[in-house]
Amino acid sequence: MELGVCYYPEHWPESGWAEDAQRMAAMGIRYVRIAEFAWSRIEPSPGDFQWDWLDRAIAALAEAGLQVVMCTPTATPPKWLVDADPAMLAVDAQGQTRGFGSRRHYCFSSASYRTQSDRITTAVAQRYGQHSAVVAWQTDNEYGCHDTVLSYSAAARAGFRTWLKTRYTTIEALNNAWGTVFWSQEYRDFDEVDAPVGTVTEATPAHCLDYRRFASDEVVAFNRRQVNILRKLSPGRDVVHNFMGFFTEFDHHDVAADLDVATWDSYPLGFTQNFFLSADEKRQYARTGHPDIPSFHHDLYRGMCQGRWWVMEQQPGPVNWAQWNPAPLDGMVRLWTWQAFAHGAEVVSYFRWRQAPFAQEQMHAGLNRPDRSLDQGGIEATQVAEELQFLKKNTALAHLNTGQVAIIFDYTSLWMAQIQPQGADFNALELSFRVYSELRQLGLDVDVLPSSADLTGYALVVLPAHLREDAALAQRLAASGAQVVLGPRSGSKSASLAIPDALAPGAFSALAGVQVQRVASLPPGLVDAVQWTQGPAASVTRWREDVKLAGAVALAQFDDGKPAVTRYTNTWYAAGWMDSAGWRHLLSQAARAASLTPLDLHADVRVSRSGDLVFALNFSSSTVDFSPSTDAQCLLGARALAPQAVSIWKVIPSANA
Amino acid sequence: MELGVCYYPEHWPESGWAEDAQRMAAMGIRYVRIAEFAWSRIEPSPGDFQWDWLDRAIAALAEAGLQVVMCTPTATPPKWLVDADPAMLAVDAQGQTRGFGSRRHYCFSSASYRTQSDRITTAVAQRYGQHSAVVAWQTDNEYGCHDTVLSYSAAARAGFRTWLKTRYTTIEALNNAWGTVFWSQEYRDFDEVDAPVGTVTEATPAHCLDYRRFASDEVVAFNRRQVNILRKLSPGRDVVHNFMGFFTEFDHHDVAADLDVATWDSYPLGFTQNFFLSADEKRQYARTGHPDIPSFHHDLYRGMCQGRWWVMEQQPGPVNWAQWNPAPLDGMVRLWTWQAFAHGAEVVSYFRWRQAPFAQEQMHAGLNRPDRSLDQGGIEATQVAEELQFLKKNTALAHLNTGQVAIIFDYTSLWMAQIQPQGADFNALELSFRVYSELRQLGLDVDVLPSSADLTGYALVVLPAHLREDAALAQRLAASGAQVVLGPRSGSKSASLAIPDALAPGAFSALAGVQVQRVASLPPGLVDAVQWTQGPAASVTRWREDVKLAGAVALAQFDDGKPAVTRYTNTWYAAGWMDSAGWRHLLSQAARAASLTPLDLHADVRVSRSGDLVFALNFSSSTVDFSPSTDAQCLLGARALAPQAVSIWKVIPSANA
Amino acid sequence: MELGVCYYPEHWPESGWAEDAQRMAAMGIRYVRIAEFAWSRIEPSPGDFQWDWLDRAIAALAEAGLQVVMCTPTATPPKWLVDADPAMLAVDAQGQTRGFGSRRHYCFSSASYRTQSDRITTAVAQRYGQHSAVVAWQTDNEYGCHDTVLSYSAAARAGFRTWLKTRYTTIEALNNAWGTVFWSQEYRDFDEVDAPVGTVTEATPAHCLDYRRFASDEVVAFNRRQVNILRKLSPGRDVVHNFMGFFTEFDHHDVAADLDVATWDSYPLGFTQNFFLSADEKRQYARTGHPDIPSFHHDLYRGMCQGRWWVMEQQPGPVNWAQWNPAPLDGMVRLWTWQAFAHGAEVVSYFRWRQAPFAQEQMHAGLNRPDRSLDQGGIEATQVAEELQFLKKNTALAHLNTGQVAIIFDYTSLWMAQIQPQGADFNALELSFRVYSELRQLGLDVDVLPSSADLTGYALVVLPAHLREDAALAQRLAASGAQVVLGPRSGSKSASLAIPDALAPGAFSALAGVQVQRVASLPPGLVDAVQWTQGPAASVTRWREDVKLAGAVALAQFDDGKPAVTRYTNTWYAAGWMDSAGWRHLLSQAARAASLTPLDLHADVRVSRSGDLVFALNFSSSTVDFSPSTDAQCLLGARALAPQAVSIWKVIPSANA
Repeated sequence: MELGVCYYPEHWPESGWAEDAQRMAAMGIRYVRIAEFAWSRIEPSPGDFQWDWLDRAIAALAEAGLQVVMCTPTATPPKWLVDADPAMLAVDAQGQTRGFGSRRHYCFSSASYRTQSDRITTAVAQRYGQHSAVVAWQTDNEYGCHDTVLSYSAAARAGFRTWLKTRYTTIEALNNAWGTVFWSQEYRDFDEVDAPVGTVTEATPAHCLDYRRFASDEVVAFNRRQVNILRKLSPGRDVVHNFMGFFTEFDHHDVAADLDVATWDSYPLGFTQNFFLSADEKRQYARTGHPDIPSFHHDLYRGMCQGRWWVMEQQPGPVNWAQWNPAPLDGMVRLWTWQAFAHGAEVVSYFRWRQAPFAQEQMHAGLNRPDRSLDQGGIEATQVAEELQFLKKNTALAHLNTGQVAIIFDYTSLWMAQIQPQGADFNALELSFRVYSELRQLGLDVDVLPSSADLTGYALVVLPAHLREDAALAQRLAASGAQVVLGPRSGSKSASLAIPDALAPGAFSALAGVQVQRVASLPPGLVDAVQWTQGPAASVTRWREDVKLAGAVALAQFDDGKPAVTRYTNTWYAAGWMDSAGWRHLLSQAARAASLTPLDLHADVRVSRSGDLVFALNFSSSTVDFSPSTDAQCLLGARALAPQAVSIWKVIPSANA
Repeated sequence: MELGVCYYPEHWPESGWAEDAQRMAAMGIRYVRIAEFAWSRIEPSPGDFQWDWLDRAIAALAEAGLQVVMCTPTATPPKWLVDADPAMLAVDAQGQTRGFGSRRHYCFSSASYRTQSDRITTAVAQRYGQHSAVVAWQTDNEYGCHDTVLSYSAAARAGFRTWLKTRYTTIEALNNAWGTVFWSQEYRDFDEVDAPVGTVTEATPAHCLDYRRFASDEVVAFNRRQVNILRKLSPGRDVVHNFMGFFTEFDHHDVAADLDVATWDSYPLGFTQNFFLSADEKRQYARTGHPDIPSFHHDLYRGMCQGRWWVMEQQPGPVNWAQWNPAPLDGMVRLWTWQAFAHGAEVVSYFRWRQAPFAQEQMHAGLNRPDRSLDQGGIEATQVAEELQFLKKNTALAHLNTGQVAIIFDYTSLWMAQIQPQGADFNALELSFRVYSELRQLGLDVDVLPSSADLTGYALVVLPAHLREDAALAQRLAASGAQVVLGPRSGSKSASLAIPDALAPGAFSALAGVQVQRVASLPPGLVDAVQWTQGPAASVTRWREDVKLAGAVALAQFDDGKPAVTRYTNTWYAAGWMDSAGWRHLLSQAARAASLTPLDLHADVRVSRSGDLVFALNFSSSTVDFSPSTDAQCLLGARALAPQAVSIWKVIPSANA
Repeated sequence: MELGVCYYPEHWPESGWAEDAQRMAAMGIRYVRIAEFAWSRIEPSPGDFQWDWLDRAIAALAEAGLQVVMCTPTATPPKWLVDADPAMLAVDAQGQTRGFGSRRHYCFSSASYRTQSDRITTAVAQRYGQHSAVVAWQTDNEYGCHDTVLSYSAAARAGFRTWLKTRYTTIEALNNAWGTVFWSQEYRDFDEVDAPVGTVTEATPAHCLDYRRFASDEVVAFNRRQVNILRKLSPGRDVVHNFMGFFTEFDHHDVAADLDVATWDSYPLGFTQNFFLSADEKRQYARTGHPDIPSFHHDLYRGMCQGRWWVMEQQPGPVNWAQWNPAPLDGMVRLWTWQAFAHGAEVVSYFRWRQAPFAQEQMHAGLNRPDRSLDQGGIEATQVAEELQFLKKNTALAHLNTGQVAIIFDYTSLWMAQIQPQGADFNALELSFRVYSELRQLGLDVDVLPSSADLTGYALVVLPAHLREDAALAQRLAASGAQVVLGPRSGSKSASLAIPDALAPGAFSALAGVQVQRVASLPPGLVDAVQWTQGPAASVTRWREDVKLAGAVALAQFDDGKPAVTRYTNTWYAAGWMDSAGWRHLLSQAARAASLTPLDLHADVRVSRSGDLVFALNFSSSTVDFSPSTDAQCLLGARALAPQAVSIWKVIPSANA
């Protein structure tokens, strides 16, 4: 558990660098990330490398005892490079080139830009790869930000054709997989295939899915080239990338496979405003963020690199990029930091040291204001640093690894649901998040894992939105002995985004003991009541299915008598988009069947276990009474948990869960 | 009254064709439509015709006693054809080419594609034109679907200039008609005129209207070429096209003039979700569809080809293309089928035999599921087939032809209102539908007719939204002796989309005895009360007019004393977009004046007469007591009409209406 | 106080011109604007000038004793000109050319179009510059209408580079001003700089701001060329332009600096529907317009040309271009006319004499209907003309010039807020309007002035949304002795759209005695209560600030105790987007501190003073009792002010304000 910060020496007069570094160190910060957007200062014109300023900036940090996370600057190729090779730019779905003047103006498929990326990565790594203060490397910055994964350039089209040849070998195989006989869309050669864009109405779903896969693979390939260079020129350093929140345009598990540490950029208030929460939730959580948004991602990214993960950018105050940018309540920056540590973060690094008064992000707060005065985020970071020191003295800290509940998170399934939503509000990412949130409100610790994960030891495995038919996973689930909860649409699509031969849930049929005979998306306002044999009043909106029992029994029914929730030995199936009451009851029953003990928590209090520690976090506006057990020892905070407060307890592990 | 189905042998292994055909026949299906999207299988590469598979597919159907509706495959030109002639593609209003990868990727104005259409039509007609099992031909598929009537290609621009020369002869005549003196838009030559697109603000209304007329004529011309070939090579067969619902981008009366039978594709739930119904209606009718959506189109398409019409595609379960795709309640597929027969359909053909598990429409239900198990739609089609057999034994069936109430439906008027709505929610199609629906709720049978129709024998003629000044129609109305009801904006536009010299209602002024002195569109929430001299409280929203009485008397007034509804001898005029109560009272009074007898029906029950039969259909969720008269004989169903139930009665015709 | 009208002789047969002119004169109209869209009739083909018809039209008007406002026809270049030089067209942000077929299809930066503009302006001015009936010239028409200020053509890009060279001299200066070190956006040469468009995410704010400044300067330059020609060829005539409502895309003060009279086009109902009013307001004011929309612009445009201003186009009935186009209540056209005179208009000119039955504006009412019958607007204009005659006999009329309250209106500040709203609903124009409206509801007369204005004599100066740091203004405010009210975000941006070194309110800090430490935009539904030490319950939405007191005292607080409103000697600061109650109390207190006397008026009654006259206008639906004082003399109307009524009173000036 360490603190870090993002710093831009190139934004400030050199005269202040040493003081900045000393203040960071004094505050308790250990890691400083630099240089991810500094290409135009490193190489102001072709081949003219200017290292001196950066050497001195690193020296200033090192002198203060700080450790540097160095970056490759490939997210912001300079103007001279773009002018020399305009074909490196991405092209949008309307055929417009996405030009210079902000950032991420490159196409992942551009061969010439890959060469440039190799060249600058090599140059930076040669210069600093062996530097004693440099302890880690970040590749590029936020791959895919601003909708940059998908490009429709000539380079992308050519790359797609090559990718298809590799995948299908023969054009007949492609035609079969995509079902191009439909609407006479058959191809005679791979070179006839274009990107699935500019069509009169929707393109073939399997065509779209393969383009998504291809684009994801292009990100993986782009990143891997940098990783390979860095490993060679800077051995012994961690190579990381900073992923984003609620961002699913490429398969993060695939990129993470090449990294040492998965890091991500946590902006709870921005995510609360900009994503799928209801208007009421956006208002209610405007100044705290939804409690489960940070932890959903913590638990997701912890599942990427054998448990090693950081928050690379932590929101320190209001941001600039959401539709509305409220200020966090006093205490929230501290609470978010502790929440990350509670979920096992190695490092929480704030973005950014000092608010820039100019350019696109001038309204984004830092730990310090533009005039260098300490802002609220800086005050709270200082407090956390002191508390960390106290805590480290008094207890041994472990990385959290629950082995209790696993959620399977599958990028391909999300793409499938985006390509074929079938109802305008079927958002598989939201469904995954809602189910996660219910588990957290039950006080259960969750690992969010890829479908290929080893499930040994999990008592409960939940697949909220695993549309992709997945025979290997089905086999592992059957072997695991865990209770298994399947959400609607599970296994409803083959690898080629078609309906499985035996209908949904496809490969999960034997587990679930049901067959889906019909699906319906429900327009807004249409609410189908769900009655549990024993349980609360519940309902579905957005989506419902008619399932035929094939072994399973119905635990809950719709008004017309059709099953709403079924169970077959260890496997539970939800035949619709259930409300909170419905999911809570289902998950609670499944957890009990798995010999887990759901808690009865205040709605906006969250509890996490890490080794023999229990963290309690209060996102609500009331003081809440909480202790994990009568004999637990309070290390930080108090039993009366004030709004925005944190308490940390030491328990006898076996007494819990 | 026969049943049909749409079938795609090319989607399934040949080994199952014979069984499919036998099952169709056993179910009571007589017609099978095939091959409308099969070009890439018929001609996989240029000139390489592959007839064998299609010969065998037709043989399999014929062997089972089925009759084939063969199609021209021009809605889906294959990739090789597009690559050989990219200029055949349509261009959208932003100048983007609408490419290959779905369907309908051709521009109606492309001369080269017309040649290709001739070529493939000739080839298919030569092969099957004389086949004994082939009893009808469908041209292309759903002209205009996916917004494909209007194209802004170079071919379209050239065609438009030629069309304008034909229409106006001199450029002076065009300048006069369009009023180009306004804003210095005058042209010196036809070759200076472009499509009305890409302008800084709205283009000249008459320019837009002529482009709509031109585009409609291009569809007519395209279709006519195929019809001419088919009539020559396949004499004695019906030539049909499958029109769509709530689709008005070309003049369907003009296309239908070349056909033997008008057919249309009836998707009640999809239309309910995707069109102008209120959010409440979308919810209320999510699983039944609005009761009047199918019949509005039945009555419209019955008016196209001397009363001959089919449903070519009948929704059999959930569809895939609406914003939300709920499932019909059990019984609705049967009810919709009977509703079509009640309105005079020769054939109701389900789309499709078996749900395809792949490609764009994989979430569209069929009579059978992808695994060949009979779906709910198939169960209900089977029931209808049995009931039809029973009914045919017990009574003589006639095509419905009411001669009671006519609604005039004018495509040009709809285009005029779209080009110049003057209020964002003035939707002339909706107004036509709402007025139709009120008539149906009064139990009146309606013919929806072109403005050129013979009105002899109609007791009541309603023009809900006939913006186009129409002297010929005015004359026929005057001569008819019928009661005439004019909606707001009637006759408010000349043929060149200008205000008539004598102001609205233009050519209808002498009939209506009013002059419109001012019009106003009303923003949401602005509700003007309407008080009948004798009648219910009513109101207008969206639109109101200030009319001067010129002979007419006011039957209802606004709060400021200005007339809201007027009458002059036989002609009634509504000076606004009235609510349901207002229209109901107006139409009810006019019907009584026409010696018709409006019924007092349950809100969601509909009644239709056909010869001496009376059909009653219950779209509501309650059981309703209904019989047409005390001495009527119930042929099917019962007096207690359950939800989704149908009853058929035999009456003594003279006792009704 | 005179009346005028807009007339299009080219739209009507010549046989009616004389009668039209006589009717105008008889109605009391004095000024007639003509020919602003007549280029294609003046020069039907290149160089072929046709003056005869226009000579005769002017003669007909002159003969009736009317005076002519002649126009340059540059808003509508004819087709032959566009075809000869397609590069003169503007290009939109998506790179699409904005073509011929409506109006304003030219790019302000096109050198060739500037030459054409010179040529036609010279030709028209040579022909009519010395004509005795021609008393004024209007340049072009509604600069910027239909979003035409910003163009992204090659000409605009080249012009922008030149403009930047002039502004910055060195590329280093530009890089510093824009902060291009951020995201490696540094330029090495001015020729590397493009328009801030087509970027992957938002472009650099200072880049955007300079493009807005450049585009505004292009409008100024375009207009200045015409003005220079007109002054030379038509000496002694007023040169004017007709500005628009709620339009801020160029700096109107800069254009007006070259004019004699600022005129504007007043469409109260259209503006009420199309701009930022709430749905409730749009409904409530649908038929009267919001009371303060006309006067806000009257007071704004009065501040442009030393107090000389006209309404060039006055709405006479329903218009055609708003989302909804309701009809004004009877009496509103008269009320609006008197409102303009109450605010000092020299002329109110109606648009248009007679409704055109053809082309884009055929649904726009005129004083006469298309059939020449007098419409309601014409009836009311006649009444005003009679009343004016009566009033002129009975009193001396003065131009209003309050010297009481000034609002500073700064176009650059509006652009800054548009470029960096930071909250989706932070609309600086709306904020300016809302504050203006509160002042008007307090019965205070307001001058809306540029930031460079002489503030001598003002008792109260209000800066609702002056984001731009403005040291010169701060100095004048300090020197003025006036009470000063600063809205949120005042002084929060430097000239280069960066945060001031000393943080907001920047140059206003010394005046306000506060420092803004943090800002937050508030999502919909988030309402922060504001409690005055003495005052009503109030609140902020949309925006709030945390301010540190640096001399000032808090007059109102948020629930967390932070200051919501502060005062430091003469300067008041509002730390948020306050509701009506909050602003009303703040402005009322500040007005009293300035020794002004706020009135307690009915919500929808407005009062204006002009010399010794007091005008009262009733926009409400109730009769309201009003007299300015017990000894005032009623010149027009009555103390019982009926809905839509006007009363004019003579008072002893010193008894007021």
